[in-house]
Amino acid sequence: MRAEIIAVGTEILLGQIVNTNATTIAKKLQELSIPTYYQSVVGDNEERLLEQLSLSSKRSDLIIICGGIGPTKDDLTKQTLAKFLNQKLIYHPLTKAKIENHFVATKTIMTENNLNQSLIFENAHPFLNHNGLAVGFLFEINHCTYIVLPGPPSELALMLEKEVTPYLHKKINKVFKSTTLRFTNIGESRLASIIDDLIEAQTNPTIAIYATLGDVTVRVTANGETDEECFSKMKQTITCIMERLSEYFYGIDEETLPECVVRLLRKHSKTISVAESLTGGLCQSKFVDVSGASDVFLGGVVTYQNDNKISVLHVDEQIIQNSGAVSRECALDMAKKVQKLFSSHIGLSFTGIADQGIVEGKPSGTVFIGLVTEHSEIVFELALNRNRNENRLLATIYGINEVRKYLESI
Amino acid sequence: MRAEIIAVGTEILLGQIVNTNATTIAKKLQELSIPTYYQSVVGDNEERLLEQLSLSSKRSDLIIICGGIGPTKDDLTKQTLAKFLNQKLIYHPLTKAKIENHFVATKTIMTENNLNQSLIFENAHPFLNHNGLAVGFLFEINHCTYIVLPGPPSELALMLEKEVTPYLHKKINKVFKSTTLRFTNIGESRLASIIDDLIEAQTNPTIAIYATLGDVTVRVTANGETDEECFSKMKQTITCIMERLSEYFYGIDEETLPECVVRLLRKHSKTISVAESLTGGLCQSKFVDVSGASDVFLGGVVTYQNDNKISVLHVDEQIIQNSGAVSRECALDMAKKVQKLFSSHIGLSFTGIADQGIVEGKPSGTVFIGLVTEHSEIVFELALNRNRNENRLLATIYGINEVRKYLESI
Repeated sequence: MRAEIIAVGTEILLGQIVNTNATTIAKKLQELSIPTYYQSVVGDNEERLLEQLSLSSKRSDLIIICGGIGPTKDDLTKQTLAKFLNQKLIYHPLTKAKIENHFVATKTIMTENNLNQSLIFENAHPFLNHNGLAVGFLFEINHCTYIVLPGPPSELALMLEKEVTPYLHKKINKVFKSTTLRFTNIGESRLASIIDDLIEAQTNPTIAIYATLGDVTVRVTANGETDEECFSKMKQTITCIMERLSEYFYGIDEETLPECVVRLLRKHSKTISVAESLTGGLCQSKFVDVSGASDVFLGGVVTYQNDNKISVLHVDEQIIQNSGAVSRECALDMAKKVQKLFSSHIGLSFTGIADQGIVEGKPSGTVFIGLVTEHSEIVFELALNRNRNENRLLATIYGINEVRKYLESI
Repeated sequence: MRAEIIAVGTEILLGQIVNTNATTIAKKLQELSIPTYYQSVVGDNEERLLEQLSLSSKRSDLIIICGGIGPTKDDLTKQTLAKFLNQKLIYHPLTKAKIENHFVATKTIMTENNLNQSLIFENAHPFLNHNGLAVGFLFEINHCTYIVLPGPPSELALMLEKEVTPYLHKKINKVFKSTTLRFTNIGESRLASIIDDLIEAQTNPTIAIYATLGDVTVRVTANGETDEECFSKMKQTITCIMERLSEYFYGIDEETLPECVVRLLRKHSKTISVAESLTGGLCQSKFVDVSGASDVFLGGVVTYQNDNKISVLHVDEQIIQNSGAVSRECALDMAKKVQKLFSSHIGLSFTGIADQGIVEGKPSGTVFIGLVTEHSEIVFELALNRNRNENRLLATIYGINEVRKYLESI
């Protein structure tokens, strides 16, 4: 099978939106080991879409088209594909009813255009939209499979996962299984270089790396005749990866690092509070990002100036005078004092220099993280070398990861 | 002129990276009023790139190709274009010297491949790389202009802005001027609908809308014979936009809302501290995002539980008992108490319900923001309807914007 992706939308050509849909679809095709040789974007224009379809149908046998199936008059993807393939469009009954109900429920007036969202080919396989109104579909003709998907990324992603993927699994006649391994404190290129030979050699399982600053995930996907075959194939690859990267590993699948720490805090019935200087609330915000964190995350302070470290957090004035605010001693005292102030089991603190320049004789990127628990008092010293806000984020992630390590050790 | 964009890179086809370069280039072409009808992606593959070039050169007269000009063996964009146009590649002397110096300075070994980054056509106009090693270029032949740019987004963006744009300005033989208007507390689609007729009618100036949650910018770009002509054209459009949207306007060009507030605080020699409940450090983090904020942002507390609101922040226990933690009264007292605790001129506070469900008889999305200054004590009540973390961000932006309004009024 040779796949290609066509995104339809003048707003992409004008640079108003980024074509993330192509990436979402490309990842999925890669996971399914379906080679993809082209991505194209055309505007909401019949003539140019017809041209593109004519080209694509000559060189590929799986053509995924996204966008242009909404209710406005520039939405013409389905109509153009119908013209190209000489097919008749009908209303998909279930979707038609859903659209009509939607307008009754929201007490708004439905125009004729809105029903266009329920159009499919007479002999197409419909793909339901779990996050919007427009129905997608799959149609096979002349040894070529056409898949039509909605443009809004949240609708497309869900339809791709829930409707299209099972269909493609069946078509490929294989079972697919995936696991995501999550790593921190390592950059994407460093991680990739460590498992470079595995990436180069990948066929089944496939290995895909996704990275944001401070967080790198490796998705391993295997296909086979049975679940067991998939798991056995994945196991070999995962073992190889883990042998080389275990020191950076923190979890699997969807759970983020803060979610992992909140879960562990809850498991051990521990509470945490945080004192922040350079990170300025970022660490606390990461905890509050986790829904329901309030039973274990008690709160904290942002003491961005020396005065407030003393007056609000009650850091020992002598420490700041003798060692400075950016010091092991200050980080430790901040962690102790926030633990006391909030009566939490764990106190975590961040002090350092995020910006360019030298403060108290220490270079930019110097960070001290204090971690005080019932069992231990530790200070971590980092020497970061990125820009201000990247340093702040990396320090935050480092600190949260050390809390995770502590919780996993008790 | 008809433009199209070709991105070269197998990593885009595999879904490993998003093709943001196409968006960056598309925005620039839109700003220059150069129509763009196609975007394509091909892998690092000579045969398919040749096919694509053959197709593109038939339908467009400005072809911008990005990616595949680095030092590795899959980088073959320049070589393939040379083959397609039957041109000879030579080393660009300035770039060649820069690459050689780079390897001397970093004391690493330069392989032959590295010098490929300095390749250009004999008669091409070079585009210098201000953020990396690979040189770009422009070449005109058979009424078609080819522009070659590097793949790393930070290199591409800078080369596009500093090297390509002035060249295109000259080529188009017009002066271009842009202004960005920044708005908050209004969604992208709402804003677009208010100026829909201006967007529909745009030719010169052009209007481009970019949005992130809580922040919408409108970039107005005019071209003309002189600066004065551009400014005069822009003025008319900007006046029209401002007449309709002034209540959401907060600033122009690059300055973000937190940067604007930090500047105003500095201008008026005022300091601020923040008490956060539902926003959980997000507001404080927004202030600390601004480099050098420490002279006006003193810090704050995150009191995520009622106990700590009382014990750490000294909120009046009676208030929480009588009115609840999510109340006008509590928000006001939090703002007063953080102002006192940090001895700041301004106290800002956030309390509310970010999550699903009803707390203290108030629905999810209820937020109270307290703002206490030397002149006033105000509480703002919001009813937000997005998910947990979107509600937290919107509340944060709302609060910061109210500080801006106060500072602009004094």
